Amino acid sequence: HEIVGEVTEIGRKVSKFNIGDKIGVGCIVDSCRTCKSCREDQENYCTKAVATYNGVHYDGTVNYGGYSDHIVVDERYAVKIPHPLPLASAAPLLCAGISMYSPMKYFGLAGPGKHIGIVGLGGLGHIGVRFAKAFGSKVTVVSSTAGKSKDALENFGADGFLVSTDEDQMQGAMGTMDGIIDTVSASHPILPLVGLLKPNGKLVLLGAMEKPFDLHAFSLILGRKSIAGSAIGGIKETQEMINFAAEHGIKAEIETISMEYVNTAMDRLAKGDIRYRFVIDIANTLAVTRS
Amino acid sequence: HEIVGEVTEIGRKVSKFNIGDKIGVGCIVDSCRTCKSCREDQENYCTKAVATYNGVHYDGTVNYGGYSDHIVVDERYAVKIPHPLPLASAAPLLCAGISMYSPMKYFGLAGPGKHIGIVGLGGLGHIGVRFAKAFGSKVTVVSSTAGKSKDALENFGADGFLVSTDEDQMQGAMGTMDGIIDTVSASHPILPLVGLLKPNGKLVLLGAMEKPFDLHAFSLILGRKSIAGSAIGGIKETQEMINFAAEHGIKAEIETISMEYVNTAMDRLAKGDIRYRFVIDIANTLAVTRS
Repeated sequence: HEIVGEVTEIGRKVSKFNIGDKIGVGCIVDSCRTCKSCREDQENYCTKAVATYNGVHYDGTVNYGGYSDHIVVDERYAVKIPHPLPLASAAPLLCAGISMYSPMKYFGLAGPGKHIGIVGLGGLGHIGVRFAKAFGSKVTVVSSTAGKSKDALENFGADGFLVSTDEDQMQGAMGTMDGIIDTVSASHPILPLVGLLKPNGKLVLLGAMEKPFDLHAFSLILGRKSIAGSAIGGIKETQEMINFAAEHGIKAEIETISMEYVNTAMDRLAKGDIRYRFVIDIANTLAVTRS
Repeated sequence: HEIVGEVTEIGRKVSKFNIGDKIGVGCIVDSCRTCKSCREDQENYCTKAVATYNGVHYDGTVNYGGYSDHIVVDERYAVKIPHPLPLASAAPLLCAGISMYSPMKYFGLAGPGKHIGIVGLGGLGHIGVRFAKAFGSKVTVVSSTAGKSKDALENFGADGFLVSTDEDQMQGAMGTMDGIIDTVSASHPILPLVGLLKPNGKLVLLGAMEKPFDLHAFSLILGRKSIAGSAIGGIKETQEMINFAAEHGIKAEIETISMEYVNTAMDRLAKGDIRYRFVIDIANTLAVTRS
């Protein structure tokens, strides 16, 4: 559900796009369009939103997302990819990018003078570091993989790196962060992350951990802290994010592969052996590095 | 730590109060005065704040709060009780009142058009209903005690009442609330309360439940919901709250007792046999209803 391509055909009533435009489609391809969330451009929180991948449309059609030669989509659910952004490295912005951008904006964490923690340096996390730096924030990456510190600090411009399993490091950073975006969906302790927050700090969870986690009320009460969740963003905000990325030269780190390589890529993904997103060249129009 | 009285003596440098003023002292009597929380009038979140009751002052003095004939307090940590508020029924505002008022204001839950849930109809909850109604909100009380519905609806002006153990009632109210203030400190399930929230809704916990509670990340992610904590309020905000209460005629429901009755009162408190706050007449100057 991070699809980019070129418009090849438009319907009679289409006004947003022309043939030849570079456009993107993210996680959803439809929603009810009438509920409060839809009316407020937060289609992502519409309870009837239709997922781009594996979603069942109102007429029963099953969607196969980016594993398709073509996609037919209502213009409301597509965004323009501005010229300066390379198409392939813009693709992951459509889910990973908006998932990071939206909570930083909504929860008041996007701005100079903020200290933002990014938990997990993967497909989402590395783009998050770049957005947070573009907002002017101080950024600390929190990861269980010490080996990622070089990438975090040198390649993505993070200001700090904490190994989440190192108690001394975590203890030393207690009460220093205004906000934390947690991208990890494997089960992991939440309480130490709450401890990293300043008073009034906010921890935003993006990963739907399968198991419930434990929380002590007093960890929130002492310091008026919040734990929130966030899921991608609305289409209007996705366009805003893509434009911001184009302005600030924010791209995802990608490895472009052919469709033939996809099973190998899946195996590598399961091992975490990717910096940081695979992009599949469905139409054979890109410079593929693996095939 | 909900103390009201009359000023009998002032120090040379006191400028905020005069002898004879009716004043109140809440949960804290000092704080470091230099940290960010103190500088921003949120002394309640200062990690060195000194508790009015059972707190140990910087010089080693142990504080006994309202169980004292006199209290010596720095003027910064006292508030004026405006004339129209009866002294005794203003007392519980100093902890219970500010505990409800502060999160409603801070989390954007104080205003017309909001639907606010108040969990627990006790010392805090009943004042919360009155504040939320004064802010112009629609208020629903959520309680495990069905017998409290009459008080909630008829005496405190709540618009609705949900028995938290009644699954049908809870199910019928899913997704209807902008915010919930949860006053209950006994262990209780949190997930059903998250379910009551609309998208972007906020659940604020005031009760420091002894045991951790379970939370599923996806309950927050679907709908960008938050769970937060809140602890009383700063002194400046406590004064603002007391002034608001005076303007809107908001009082606590109290039973005034003599010091001799205090052990009986403790037993009744343990059984929940109080509507809704005991006030002890330390100086024998009030109309005592039980002695």
